[in-house]
Amino acid sequence: MQLPVRSRLLLLLLLLRASGLRAGERSSSAMEEIATEKEAEESHRQDSVSLLTFILLLTLTILTIWLFKHRRVRFLHETGLAMIYGLIVGVILRYGSPSSSGHDKPFSCSQEDRPFTTLLVNVSGKFFEYTLKGEISPGKIHNVEQNDMLRKVTFDPEVFFNILLPPIIFHAGYSLKKRHFFRNLGSILAYAFLGTAVSCFIIGNLMYGVVKLMKLVGQLSDKFYYTDCLLFGAVISATDPVTVLAIFNELHADVDLYALLFGESVLNDAVAIVLSSSIVAYQPTGENTHAFDAAAFFKSVGVFLGIFSGSFMMGAVTGVVTALISFLVIYVTKFTKLHCFPLLETALFFLMSWSTFLLAEACGFTGVVAVLFCGITQAHYTYNNLSVESRSRTKQLFEVLHFLAENFIFSYMGLALFTFQKHIFSPIFIIGAFIAIFLGRAAHIYPLSFFLNLGRRHKISWNFQHMMMFSGLRGAMAFALAIRDTATYSHQMMFSTTLLIVFFTVWIIGGGTTPMLSWLNIRVGDHAPSVEEINESRWLYFRVGVDPDQDPPPSNDSFQVLQGDGPDSERGNRTKQESAWLFRLWYSFDHNYLKPILTHSGPPLTTTLPSCCGLLARCLTTPQVYDNQEQLREEDSDFILNDGDLTLTYGDTTITANGSSGSRTATTSLDGRKTKSSSEEALEHDLGMGDNEVTSRGTRLVFPLEDNA
Amino acid sequence: MQLPVRSRLLLLLLLLRASGLRAGERSSSAMEEIATEKEAEESHRQDSVSLLTFILLLTLTILTIWLFKHRRVRFLHETGLAMIYGLIVGVILRYGSPSSSGHDKPFSCSQEDRPFTTLLVNVSGKFFEYTLKGEISPGKIHNVEQNDMLRKVTFDPEVFFNILLPPIIFHAGYSLKKRHFFRNLGSILAYAFLGTAVSCFIIGNLMYGVVKLMKLVGQLSDKFYYTDCLLFGAVISATDPVTVLAIFNELHADVDLYALLFGESVLNDAVAIVLSSSIVAYQPTGENTHAFDAAAFFKSVGVFLGIFSGSFMMGAVTGVVTALISFLVIYVTKFTKLHCFPLLETALFFLMSWSTFLLAEACGFTGVVAVLFCGITQAHYTYNNLSVESRSRTKQLFEVLHFLAENFIFSYMGLALFTFQKHIFSPIFIIGAFIAIFLGRAAHIYPLSFFLNLGRRHKISWNFQHMMMFSGLRGAMAFALAIRDTATYSHQMMFSTTLLIVFFTVWIIGGGTTPMLSWLNIRVGDHAPSVEEINESRWLYFRVGVDPDQDPPPSNDSFQVLQGDGPDSERGNRTKQESAWLFRLWYSFDHNYLKPILTHSGPPLTTTLPSCCGLLARCLTTPQVYDNQEQLREEDSDFILNDGDLTLTYGDTTITANGSSGSRTATTSLDGRKTKSSSEEALEHDLGMGDNEVTSRGTRLVFPLEDNA
Repeated sequence: MQLPVRSRLLLLLLLLRASGLRAGERSSSAMEEIATEKEAEESHRQDSVSLLTFILLLTLTILTIWLFKHRRVRFLHETGLAMIYGLIVGVILRYGSPSSSGHDKPFSCSQEDRPFTTLLVNVSGKFFEYTLKGEISPGKIHNVEQNDMLRKVTFDPEVFFNILLPPIIFHAGYSLKKRHFFRNLGSILAYAFLGTAVSCFIIGNLMYGVVKLMKLVGQLSDKFYYTDCLLFGAVISATDPVTVLAIFNELHADVDLYALLFGESVLNDAVAIVLSSSIVAYQPTGENTHAFDAAAFFKSVGVFLGIFSGSFMMGAVTGVVTALISFLVIYVTKFTKLHCFPLLETALFFLMSWSTFLLAEACGFTGVVAVLFCGITQAHYTYNNLSVESRSRTKQLFEVLHFLAENFIFSYMGLALFTFQKHIFSPIFIIGAFIAIFLGRAAHIYPLSFFLNLGRRHKISWNFQHMMMFSGLRGAMAFALAIRDTATYSHQMMFSTTLLIVFFTVWIIGGGTTPMLSWLNIRVGDHAPSVEEINESRWLYFRVGVDPDQDPPPSNDSFQVLQGDGPDSERGNRTKQESAWLFRLWYSFDHNYLKPILTHSGPPLTTTLPSCCGLLARCLTTPQVYDNQEQLREEDSDFILNDGDLTLTYGDTTITANGSSGSRTATTSLDGRKTKSSSEEALEHDLGMGDNEVTSRGTRLVFPLEDNA
Repeated sequence: MQLPVRSRLLLLLLLLRASGLRAGERSSSAMEEIATEKEAEESHRQDSVSLLTFILLLTLTILTIWLFKHRRVRFLHETGLAMIYGLIVGVILRYGSPSSSGHDKPFSCSQEDRPFTTLLVNVSGKFFEYTLKGEISPGKIHNVEQNDMLRKVTFDPEVFFNILLPPIIFHAGYSLKKRHFFRNLGSILAYAFLGTAVSCFIIGNLMYGVVKLMKLVGQLSDKFYYTDCLLFGAVISATDPVTVLAIFNELHADVDLYALLFGESVLNDAVAIVLSSSIVAYQPTGENTHAFDAAAFFKSVGVFLGIFSGSFMMGAVTGVVTALISFLVIYVTKFTKLHCFPLLETALFFLMSWSTFLLAEACGFTGVVAVLFCGITQAHYTYNNLSVESRSRTKQLFEVLHFLAENFIFSYMGLALFTFQKHIFSPIFIIGAFIAIFLGRAAHIYPLSFFLNLGRRHKISWNFQHMMMFSGLRGAMAFALAIRDTATYSHQMMFSTTLLIVFFTVWIIGGGTTPMLSWLNIRVGDHAPSVEEINESRWLYFRVGVDPDQDPPPSNDSFQVLQGDGPDSERGNRTKQESAWLFRLWYSFDHNYLKPILTHSGPPLTTTLPSCCGLLARCLTTPQVYDNQEQLREEDSDFILNDGDLTLTYGDTTITANGSSGSRTATTSLDGRKTKSSSEEALEHDLGMGDNEVTSRGTRLVFPLEDNA
């Protein structure tokens, strides 16, 4: 490893102009100053205009969404709409704006060995500082002198990863519907990890075949390695949680199908990010840099495992720390729920979530993945410590951020189709890619579902499998991964193809979801109560996920991962038993130790810890736990984001309701029971009784507003 | 005006390394690529760490504030706290981190005539793009090779103006308490415009004397012009609305004193920004560039008037447009208040406010000033069109943004004292500056108050004048203006001095506000209801501004700017009559035409427009106006941000209440009346009857929660 020698520095300090007449020089330097200032001002103005373009685009999108929601238009989702507006503006910018203004003619000078991050340039006796922006491939030097306006509307790809994706992903993690997510955890993990790996591998290999074909017919004008194909597989394997979430939630599709799809798409984003990093990290040593190398391969696998587990740990730990802080603050200041400071809580919550991202990035892990797991942890623990006011505030804050970021990305995608300067559209590659993603998805959905069905009591039906197959939308994450590196020929072709795939899937599949659901006979609850109904009766109608009118009660044991008294029962099925055993162990630990320590819910520690730790337990248990445990566990075991979702998706009926749903009477008091029985019962309650929950949800949640006070 | 010739371009394309051995070159280029990537990664990691530092600082501040609020600590405000934490971290970074790592050795090359915004550099056959960062004064070249970490934590000054100030200023405009603000509008405008100009001029001249003195004793090592002194006067004349707001609101000080101080400090920020731009724009032509030039002076005055009125118009127009859009959307989609989309409304509101900023910047006006007036307009019109849910959401969103931005700026200030590399502390200048700001404030508060008292029925008492004199805190705005340009010696000295003044005023004056208020015998309502009281009675206690227990009812005619039937009465006092006449004219126009067109409140247009416009009026009037006018006008005439403030400042009792306060019965129906009488009555209602309001507020707003449903 011979690194370039740092000290070899070519210093070209050519002071071209010596000091001339004092007054004359001063006047001329003042003129130059003014000219530079004017140029900076002009540049700032152009920045403002380009940002304004995006904001007006978003405004237009929002106004149209408003109309669409009103007219109940379903064939086009808001993200699709944002893309269309982006496209239109892109066309206008591309063909309507004047070409290169000649302002920013590049200046070239030479330097030895390696680029410096800072450059000092001496212009007639004045020194200017420049910072490194990036490398330009030699063939593209002329492209630097491109249309000013088009360059202004082109964002640094890192903006997507560091500013726009985190709120989207955090919101996804924070709004994972807990019960259904955990009930289907095994299947979701299988789809996310195995599925993404299979999809990536199959797409990569198919695309390598396509590339070979292109080389044969002479359609390939530059290098396209096997690793590039695999990278494309990883990039395009990230299905979009946001679009799937919105369409399914709006259509009130089956909750378990929803959980499977949403959970899969949230987690496979994380997998795809880390997978693509690992593929980029795959750099065999020696001469043959793009052939297979076992050592490099295992290094890549190591990188994958390291980054993934690191990011996971980082996110989980920060979530737990936030929970601990919020718990401690409440404990130390002895605040009851009523008199907390929502502003401070919200700000703290926001900052801690952001610091997760930064911490992970600083440690070399993936911030977006860490933020995802931080969101899940925050929803699981911290959420319970927040005051009612803060819960709705944090939800609303992240909802707005998520909404803006998402629509921004989609309108940028529309814009990029015309304003991106290095598109390479290859018909063969594009057709090949469409076939490859279809086959790649088919190759993991059907076989995995088959194997999962061996272990599931409630099988994933063929219709569900077809629907999952159909729902492989690609969105913001695929775009962000593809735009991250567009330096080489192969990456540019991948980016252009990804853009087209995103357009196609969002428009066609997004618009076709409704017909597909009815064609596949999947339950869709499409009835919303009329406004008059609500107004007249003044009852708060509280609908979550499914509609009682159209949702026939499933049999009591369906979807139950666990049944019986303990881990020893029902050993017949290996897959199921193992995941059950692991899950049960974790659940028991979480319920008995983590929750009581981190939140005010769960059983008091005094009952769960062995008697030798009695003193410690008493110190760690707040008096509230004894009072609140029943009430809080109920809240917690329910869908945590029901009213957030309501506001997001049932905009027609925006009466949101905070507070606990207090009409359930099924649970018994657990005070004083010993560890196992209490956790078992709670687990059963959370998992098994969820079905009753599903059926009764429509009815039990209709309660008069007067109770809310 | 001889501009540098653009086409003269020195192209030093020296390809130092010709193509060598293919394989060897490729391997070495791969190595270089890895090295560059590693460096970029390292840079990204350091960025993350520095941002993380700030976030942890903010987290620490929030946690301490939480404790402080709990223990009711008043001697140190949260902004002061943020500064202290910033200071500590600054010391650690300054003395704890290793010095220059030698990573970013500057590379110099020469160029003729003028700097280019983009630079292409050829490093051993690879091209790298650099962007212009700014000019470095020749003496400071070595400073580029400074401590890596210190440079990382130094933000681009434009970040303050373009990212951090807008939410703060918008929030200030949005939360101007309308009734008291408009009742004291004349005095506020006088303090803000005349006062700031007087203060700027006096401080500038005094500082010029100080600079002369420094030159005499040999303490001045570089140029310090008269315009620099005036600029310092403008920069330091911006009193801080945020700190004043927080301390006064927390102490429940007199509402009119509060309105005077808050209104003045909000508006004088705008004046100070534009004033400093005008002073920078003052560039006399010819040889003698820093002497007085009448033409340049009038040009500066023209710039001031142009930028100010332009920004004002821009803000007001965007506010009105937003109101119109929200009105139209509601009109077109025929939504009633209940079923709007809070998420869409909030996002729209946010985007439109941001676009005001960008639009103003794009047009060459001042975005921050435009945002201020946009905030005021939004509060006046758009607020009425939002659904109840959206009102609280927008408030909360801007509250969080404002809170984070404010604390960030203050902790950055603390940090900057140690991490800023170009401090110039001159004892004479600093002492002179403290005396100058004291005299500058005295020279406008007392004379202006004297003249204003001639025209005010309710005089500004000596105690109030002393309090206003004392409350001249300097904060975020002064800092942002000072850090904007620290290129020259004089600006660096100004920046260091500003920093010290901010520290001193925030800590000493902020901490001394409570003793000062009691020493001056200004009514302070310091009683907050105990939590038990609230919990036990389950009544919603709704306090605004003053406490009923300690606020003796003022006489009915005090504070009334207007009395009688029309503009013809009480012509005795010129100042008062004029402002009254102008104000009355505007109010009448606003009440009769703007409000009915832009919001759902106010009298129906059919009653205010002449009969010839009957058809038009009927088209523009929504049916809701007839129903809602009474209820809405009441809401609107009330303090619009009462519950937002409650949450911010009365955090101890965070029961917030949305919805209208429905227990007032004093108003009579205005349906069908003609223009003048209705507007007069409404005006009287808004202005004159406000006093009854003030006294009864404490009692009327105690109402049972059951009513809220």
